[in-house]
Formats: sequence, C-alpha cells, structure tokens
Amino acid sequence: MTIRAVVWNEFIHEKENAVVQAVYPDSIHETIARALREDGEITATTATLEEPEHGLSQNRLDETDVLLWWGHKAHGQVSDAVVDRVQQRVNEGMGLVVLHSGHFSKIFKRMMGTPCSLRWREAGERERLWVINPSHPIAQGIDKAIELPNSEMYGEPFLVPEPLETVFVSWFEGGEVFRSGLTYQRGAGRIFYFEPGHETYPIYHDPQIQTVLRNAVRWAYNPAKPWKDVSEAPNVPIETAREKLERKGGSLHKAGEAGYR
Amino acid sequence: MTIRAVVWNEFIHEKENAVVQAVYPDSIHETIARALREDGEITATTATLEEPEHGLSQNRLDETDVLLWWGHKAHGQVSDAVVDRVQQRVNEGMGLVVLHSGHFSKIFKRMMGTPCSLRWREAGERERLWVINPSHPIAQGIDKAIELPNSEMYGEPFLVPEPLETVFVSWFEGGEVFRSGLTYQRGAGRIFYFEPGHETYPIYHDPQIQTVLRNAVRWAYNPAKPWKDVSEAPNVPIETAREKLERKGGSLHKAGEAGYR
Amino acid sequence: MTIRAVVWNEFIHEKENAVVQAVYPDSIHETIARALREDGEITATTATLEEPEHGLSQNRLDETDVLLWWGHKAHGQVSDAVVDRVQQRVNEGMGLVVLHSGHFSKIFKRMMGTPCSLRWREAGERERLWVINPSHPIAQGIDKAIELPNSEMYGEPFLVPEPLETVFVSWFEGGEVFRSGLTYQRGAGRIFYFEPGHETYPIYHDPQIQTVLRNAVRWAYNPAKPWKDVSEAPNVPIETAREKLERKGGSLHKAGEAGYR
Amino acid sequence: MTIRAVVWNEFIHEKENAVVQAVYPDSIHETIARALREDGEITATTATLEEPEHGLSQNRLDETDVLLWWGHKAHGQVSDAVVDRVQQRVNEGMGLVVLHSGHFSKIFKRMMGTPCSLRWREAGERERLWVINPSHPIAQGIDKAIELPNSEMYGEPFLVPEPLETVFVSWFEGGEVFRSGLTYQRGAGRIFYFEPGHETYPIYHDPQIQTVLRNAVRWAYNPAKPWKDVSEAPNVPIETAREKLERKGGSLHKAGEAGYR
Repeated sequence: MTIRAVVWNEFIHEKENAVVQAVYPDSIHETIARALREDGEITATTATLEEPEHGLSQNRLDETDVLLWWGHKAHGQVSDAVVDRVQQRVNEGMGLVVLHSGHFSKIFKRMMGTPCSLRWREAGERERLWVINPSHPIAQGIDKAIELPNSEMYGEPFLVPEPLETVFVSWFEGGEVFRSGLTYQRGAGRIFYFEPGHETYPIYHDPQIQTVLRNAVRWAYNPAKPWKDVSEAPNVPIETAREKLERKGGSLHKAGEAGYR
Repeated sequence: MTIRAVVWNEFIHEKENAVVQAVYPDSIHETIARALREDGEITATTATLEEPEHGLSQNRLDETDVLLWWGHKAHGQVSDAVVDRVQQRVNEGMGLVVLHSGHFSKIFKRMMGTPCSLRWREAGERERLWVINPSHPIAQGIDKAIELPNSEMYGEPFLVPEPLETVFVSWFEGGEVFRSGLTYQRGAGRIFYFEPGHETYPIYHDPQIQTVLRNAVRWAYNPAKPWKDVSEAPNVPIETAREKLERKGGSLHKAGEAGYR
Repeated sequence: MTIRAVVWNEFIHEKENAVVQAVYPDSIHETIARALREDGEITATTATLEEPEHGLSQNRLDETDVLLWWGHKAHGQVSDAVVDRVQQRVNEGMGLVVLHSGHFSKIFKRMMGTPCSLRWREAGERERLWVINPSHPIAQGIDKAIELPNSEMYGEPFLVPEPLETVFVSWFEGGEVFRSGLTYQRGAGRIFYFEPGHETYPIYHDPQIQTVLRNAVRWAYNPAKPWKDVSEAPNVPIETAREKLERKGGSLHKAGEAGYR
Repeated sequence: MTIRAVVWNEFIHEKENAVVQAVYPDSIHETIARALREDGEITATTATLEEPEHGLSQNRLDETDVLLWWGHKAHGQVSDAVVDRVQQRVNEGMGLVVLHSGHFSKIFKRMMGTPCSLRWREAGERERLWVINPSHPIAQGIDKAIELPNSEMYGEPFLVPEPLETVFVSWFEGGEVFRSGLTYQRGAGRIFYFEPGHETYPIYHDPQIQTVLRNAVRWAYNPAKPWKDVSEAPNVPIETAREKLERKGGSLHKAGEAGYR
C-alpha cells in the first residue's frame, strides 16, 4: 500500500515574515511533507498557491489520495474553479486534512456548509490537546494529551456541524476550550480538522503533532475506487426497474430525457 | 407565538406546462402557503424567482423565521448573492425546509457540502413514506406511513451527510428505497429535507403531506434571537482573557488587529 | 402547557455529611425542585431512594414528563426492577436529565451502553462551562460561559457515545477539559447529561445553573403521546401486508404465532 | 495481520427444526465461520450457548478481535455474567457484528440502550438491500444492491439510536423498508448490525452476504491495544494536576480515596 499525500500551503508568511521564516526556514509544507515521509507507506509531495492552478490540476488531484490544507491570509486568492475541483474529489473519495487557520479556507467552508468561525488570541499561551478517544486511529501513539508550550488560542463556539467523532478537545491557558480534532464523512471522502499549527510557533516540528498528521493521512485514505459520478443523478428507466412497472399519472419528462440541475 | 414562513418557488412549470397547471392552478407556492395558514400560529407568504432579488431581500429574510424551498429546472438562475444571503440567515437561525427537487438547489448543496445527487424515475409509481420515529415533532398526526398513489421515484444513494435524525424512509413500487425525511443542524439553523412533491402529481394537496409541512415549519423555527455575527471570528485580547495571561513566543498580528479571512 | 418534572435524589450525603448539610440544608432535590418551580409551566415534585420503590412506582412514572437524576454513593442500591421501569419510560418518551455523579447511575449506563467513566478531582478548583451552541434551547439566557468558582473536576475521556449535540464544554483550573452538556435521543425520549453539581459546593444555588436546569426540562419534554408498546415486536400478517403477498419458502413460525424474545 | 473472529450461535433451530437443518446441515455458525476463513487474514472459530460459559470465557474473549452474534429463541438463556463480560470487551475495543434476530439479544440491547424492537413477517418475500454508501469498507465488492429471493421481513420503526453510518437500507416485497446495515461506536468498540439471516432461507450461503460478513469483520477490527481500564474512573490527585492547584472549598473525599460507583 502506498498513500499519495499532497501538502498544500499558501506559502506567503514564510516569504514575508521574519518570525515565521525563522521557525520554518524550509516552509510549512516541506516541514509537514518531511514528517509524513517518515511513514514508509506515505509518499508526500507539495503544492502552493503561486503554482499554475495552485498546483492542483485535475490530473494531480486524480492521483492524490489525501490532501492536507494550510492557508491563512490568502484564502480569497484561491480560485473558485480549483475549489470546485477539490470539493468534487473529496466527494469522490479523496481524504482532506484541514490544518489550523484552514478553518476559514474556501474548501473547508464548502464542505461544512457553516461559517467555520471561532474566537482567537495570539499570545503564545499553553495549549493542551486532550485525547477524547484513545482508541481512535488518529490518536494512536499519543498518550493522554499533547502539551504545546506556545500556541494561538482558538476558542468556542466553533461554527461547524456536529462531527462524526470528537478526537481531541483543547484546554488553553487563557481560559478557553476548543474541539481541536474533529472527523467528518462527506460523500466518499473523509475529513479531519486539526486545530494546532500557528505559523509563529514550531508546532509542526513537534513529534507528537507529526504522529497525529501521519495517523490522520492513514485514517483519511479511502482505498475504494474513486466514485467519479458521485455528482450525477441518473434516470432509471421504467424498463430497467427492479420490479415490473407500468407508467401511471401525468408526466413532465419525455422518455430517456436527462433531469434538470 | 407567530412563525413567519416564506414559501419560495421558482414558479416556471405552472406557467409553461399544461399538466402541472392542471394540478396546481394556483401555483405550488400558493398551495403550500394555504396549507401552512391552516395552523393559526403560522403566517405564510410567498416569493418567486422572477421577483426582484427573487423576493428574498435582506429585509425580507430578516423577517423570515422559516423558508421553504421548491425549485426544479432553474436552479442555475438563482443568483449567488441571494444564495449567500440565505445561507447566512440559516446559520443565524432561520429554519430551512427543502422540498423534493430542491435537493439540487444551490442553497441545499451549499448547506450540505455534498453533491445531493440521487436516482430518479417519473413513472407515477406508488410511494410509501414510513415513519421511522413516530414520536418526532415532524411526524405528529401521521400514522405508520403515508401512501402516495403516484409519485416520482427518488432512489439511494442520496449524497447527503448522515443526518441528525432520520424521520421518514420511502418504499417505491419499482423496487427502490429513499431516506425521504432528514433533519440537520447548521449553525443556529435547523434544516429539514422532505422528498415528495413532484409537480405532475397532486402531492401538496394531500392532507397528510400538508400536516408534515406544518409540523416541519414548527420544528424548524428557532425562537432564539438571530445570531447576527455567526460568521465573525473576533479576537479576544490578552487583557480580556478569563485567566491572567502574559504574552509569550513570536507574533504575527499587532495588538487589536483583525484576523485574516 | 404543564410539564410534570420529578427530581430524584439518593438523599444520603445531606443526612450524613455536615459539609453537604450546610450547603443543602433543604436537600439537593428540594433545592432543584424549587428552582424548577420558578418556571410557571413546570410542576416539580421529588422522589428519593428510601421511599417505597424509590418513589418511582409505575403510576408515578406514567405521570412524569421529565425525570432528573442525582445519585453518587448508592447507585448499587437502586433496584434493577425500578431501573427497568425507568428505562422503558424513557424509551416511551419521558425526558431524562442526568446530573453530575449520576454519570455512574444504573439508568445512565443502561441508556448509553458504555461505561460512562471519567477522571475526577475534588479540589474546589474553578470551572468554566463554555456554550458551544448559543442558539440551543438549553443555553438560552446564558451568556458565553458559566463561571463556577469551586467545582469538582471531571475530565476526559468521558466514555459515552458521540452525542446528538454538544451544548457545553468545560475548562478546569487544574488543566482538564470535559464535555459537560450533551444531548441524546433514545427511543422517544430525550436525554441531557449536565456535569456540574458536586454536593460540597453550592452549585445548584447558582442562578445560571438553575436556568440551564429549567431549559433542560423544557427541552427534554416530549409532548407526543407515550409510545407504550415501544418494546414490542409485532408480527405483520401476510393478509395485512400493504402489498399483496403470497407465502414462499420454508417457515419456522405457525400463522399468528408470537415472535421469540 | 490476523483478525481473530469468533462466531457465536445459540445453535438450537439447527438441532430441532427440520427446515433449518436442511438449510444449514453444518449449523449456522460453521457456515459463517467457513465464509470468513475465505479471507486469509481472518481466523474464525465458533462458540455456542451449550458450551460452558457459552464458550465465552474471559480468556477466550481476551483473544477475540471480533465477535459475531446469532441468536433467536434463547436470548433469555444467555447468562447475565457472560453478557457483562462481552459488553466490557466491546467497550475495550472488541468488534461486534450482530446478525438478524440478534437484534433482541441481551448484548445488543445493552449496547444500544433502546428496545431494538421492529415489525416482522415470515413470508419468504423478496428483499433488496440497497447500498447507501458504496464507498464504505463494508460495502466493497457489492454492486448497487443485494437481491434475496426469500427473506423474513423486518420493518421500521427499528428502535435503535441514530447510527454513526447507514450502510444498507432494505426494500421488502410486502411494502416495508428497514435500515438493514448500521454502524455504531461504543467505547473503543465498533458495532455493525446486519439484518438478513433468517434461518429457514439459505441467506448465509449467498456469496454477496458472505462478502459483507468478511468486510464487516475487517471494519469492526480495532488494532489499538485493548483499553482494559475503560470502565475505571481514576482520581487525579492535586499533586499530579497538569496545572498547579491548591485545594479550595469543602470536601467529601479524603485524599487518595477511591470514588463511589
């Protein structure tokens, strides 16, 4: 088994901000990709906003099993056409791991249907991610909790639908809580939102955070063959109905006609 | 208590198609609105595609408690700006009842994040909607099942997220099944999808279907005051943290600065 | 509308422990019942372990809309026959509000199917219950969070199924988090678990906690008529099938015979 | 990887009823076990009611990854002590696949908290199990639907909690529907209920049904190490709190004392 992961990053802070540059000299995406590659069954490549089609052509997506998404200040610059394409691929079965400020990305808001808003504070305070279900695949190798000495606070209410599973809930030094690891199923695709990852702290260098990322990629991987026509609404003609039928009542469509969209 | 319901209809078939005209001489929206008004605590008005802003100005939506949505062949003509507005109002707490072919409306696909696709057949076959939870508010007054002598078949897979509650599941004469009554919570808003309602059959004249519609409006009504800033992500300054904090670590934002979107 | 609430309490600590006696001179159940009565549409009575049938005869339960449950050191003394009866009534539609150490009550473990275990510490530390969904009926009248200066810590993992809705999540001074307000639907009954309420602190005297209790009783009330045969599995004879049927294949049961249990 | 499955059967009909004997000359449990063994990574053994401890000693359960359960007329003869033990193992992480009339088994009712009741008819009618999520691991290798020429009808309402995922929904010739494949998570354990399997029809000889059973065993297998203390509620002493704490307020427990149960 090989899982083909693509780490997407808007890749702006690392070029513009000295603090972030010092923490991620090789960029956030490369740091995460390197961590994923420590799992011999994951091949990790990267894509960024500045590449043609943001590095997410149809061909590239068709060969991606799990997409990780990091964005912060340039959500609005991601083209709607690319977001359409990513959304379709998630519904076909591609896994999606949304990281930190990606909560406000177009793709996450699309998949959730809700504003994905939250409260925040950049104070470098302590965060503790409690494992809610230690038997969950995403929490394997993590003890009771992950301690982050410096983190950005993300606080409730977090405007997302009730999840399939609550994997982590965070405690913050300043007094807030946050559901920091949540899973969703959308179409054939599995989605994991993971809250830590502010760019001014070395969070993606943390071995436990890296373990969670590798676990998340494995969990989000759906080995079923892609459901390419997941968005189609085919007509089932009377002749092919499983039970014998005769047409009754009034009719709008002619025989064999496609439905409206 | 008064619940202000608005019945939205694209209102095209009734003007263009003789079969539909014969079934709904007063239009689908007027038929449904009349049924809602039989509940003395519901005031029902209507809105259609052809009106300015499709009849859904910001003011109108701000005074709407529950919006019912019927559309079929003109989903693409609904303006994205109006859909943005409706989505925001649902997240603020307005109820949304999506009817029949509204499964492919922009607003329903937005709220779900999935394709909302299904299988279909227009053969006038028998449909039987089984009540899954007879104690659910939406099923009050309905016995074990609703029998529709003529219906359009909608078949699984229905590409929506796993619901909050499965209220109805349908049996079709031609051999298919469909989860025909599903509830969702999105932000402060409650959503009910209800499958029957093909325009060539007199389904919205059926007393039991009308009972379900009235129940659905009552269920979808959230009396809490609208959550106007549901999409905002406010900063919580260090000075106002519930627990005493001192700034640590690197920083991206200046004090008091708004977050990125 | 009148909602008939019964507050059940094991009523032991108040008689044996001077600390608890000082905090609840009138008992925990009477304190809660009094708070509920401030809502003119709730009639609240009480029942305790020492009464015949623990005060929960079949007649009493049949006239109860919502049962609140407080127990701590005598869970094992609650008779299985009474628990059977309460479980049946919840499945028929009676609401159940489980309080604090009631997490380990027989009735809560029965309804959940899981151990309902957690971590705990009695240090009088600060607890802050954050509202996760401010538009939820149970959270009406509560601002962003409820602050309790002294509370018993309950920490995750909390071994319950993923809830219908997460209404509150708590922050504790000692560093833990807890999903402190969770809703469930079981049969026709609605269940709310609410974590605060340790007997050595005056938590049920807190006006905001009392608001939540009143809201919870209103939310848990199901006005549908009781589903008395919810546990029955009736045979549907061939003659009464909705579609015409002829018997085929081998058979185990004779016509009209009751099923096995 | 090897998954250790145990197929449990009450094993009564096969000995007492000639019809069942003809269909399952080697017993239901042996038929299912043989089907599981076609997957080279599953080792399948069996256990029956008549064995000491019903074949489910603590040692046996400790070495079981997934337990399949078939029972019908002797649910009441299963000892409560064994059910306690099985429930504990599921919460520790053992998978549980409940088959057909096992809906009324003690273990399933324990795990669900609801009556698990339904409607039924033994008429040998046609059943069609529609795949709701074709990308689900349990549905791999199954096309749109499984057709069973003769089946016992199980009809809604099915009194179980809303599932994690709805994998199959069934259509019956006599006019009913049933949610025939449902998943649950309870503690560390995964549960799958699968409806077909009436003993007078050769359903467990059907290749597609066998595929679903193998898939279900793989899906229900949790490779995480057993959560042996899942039912414990340990005290977290003040001295070991993650944040520095000082005792405040009144106290019930002495330092180091175990909690009540």
